Amino acid sequence: MFTPKAIGFVRSPYRESAAIPKGLGATHDAVGALEIQDEFEPGLQDIEGFSHLFVIWAFNQSKGFELAGPTPIDHKVHGVFATRSPRRPNPIALTVVELLRRESNTLLVRGLDMLDGTPILDIKPYLSSIPIGTLRRGWIAEAEAAKGAGE
Amino acid sequence: MFTPKAIGFVRSPYRESAAIPKGLGATHDAVGALEIQDEFEPGLQDIEGFSHLFVIWAFNQSKGFELAGPTPIDHKVHGVFATRSPRRPNPIALTVVELLRRESNTLLVRGLDMLDGTPILDIKPYLSSIPIGTLRRGWIAEAEAAKGAGE
Repeated sequence: MFTPKAIGFVRSPYRESAAIPKGLGATHDAVGALEIQDEFEPGLQDIEGFSHLFVIWAFNQSKGFELAGPTPIDHKVHGVFATRSPRRPNPIALTVVELLRRESNTLLVRGLDMLDGTPILDIKPYLSSIPIGTLRRGWIAEAEAAKGAGE
Repeated sequence: MFTPKAIGFVRSPYRESAAIPKGLGATHDAVGALEIQDEFEPGLQDIEGFSHLFVIWAFNQSKGFELAGPTPIDHKVHGVFATRSPRRPNPIALTVVELLRRESNTLLVRGLDMLDGTPILDIKPYLSSIPIGTLRRGWIAEAEAAKGAGE
């Protein structure tokens, strides 16, 4: 199909997976950087105008995949395509970050949930949102209700 | 890094690229299906509970990449990471769809913007939205204002 390549790497305060907030109500406020390789810097033209970005990155620490397994949120089994598990048929991850500032080939961002050194595959502008009132969130909402975390 | 594989294929009314709505104000209401390969069907467990999904797919018709080029929206040059251009260093695409119904290994969805037969790389649940009032949308917003299209 194609051969994935790193367009850059994440600079994150998280040096190990255990340090990344997980589970119900986990928030991701970590600030860090997306360091884009020099050869790809021309691709950043005009990115400064966007407040939020989709970052597509590789779960490069993940080995193999599990089509259904328990999650750290409710410890129940769910299909991998109904979770954010790293053990996916294609180890591709997606994170929405807030763009704080661009400094040449470096994007300073808030909202990281990846390890330091993680390879970045793509960045796209975040253009629109599904209104929160129209979202159904399946087993995640059930887990929140069960734990009284609510919204 | 990893070798991308199709977990399934899109069944879409679009047989050629020219048929897909593009440009300012283009809407994507097309209904079709995500046909997941039998071997990956266990990964769909509990997906029915989510109203919206992220579909990560491959721009498999795209050849090579262009780091900066004109868009069909404003015909001005922008960096590829500030656009949804298919000609990206990693030809990975992202579409948010509404999940209408699951029928065993098939997800009936609304909001397709891909060609019939497009390989699907991953599906993730859509869990939260950036409030629309906090979004800045850079050159896209400028193009809308210039054309009086507004929001």
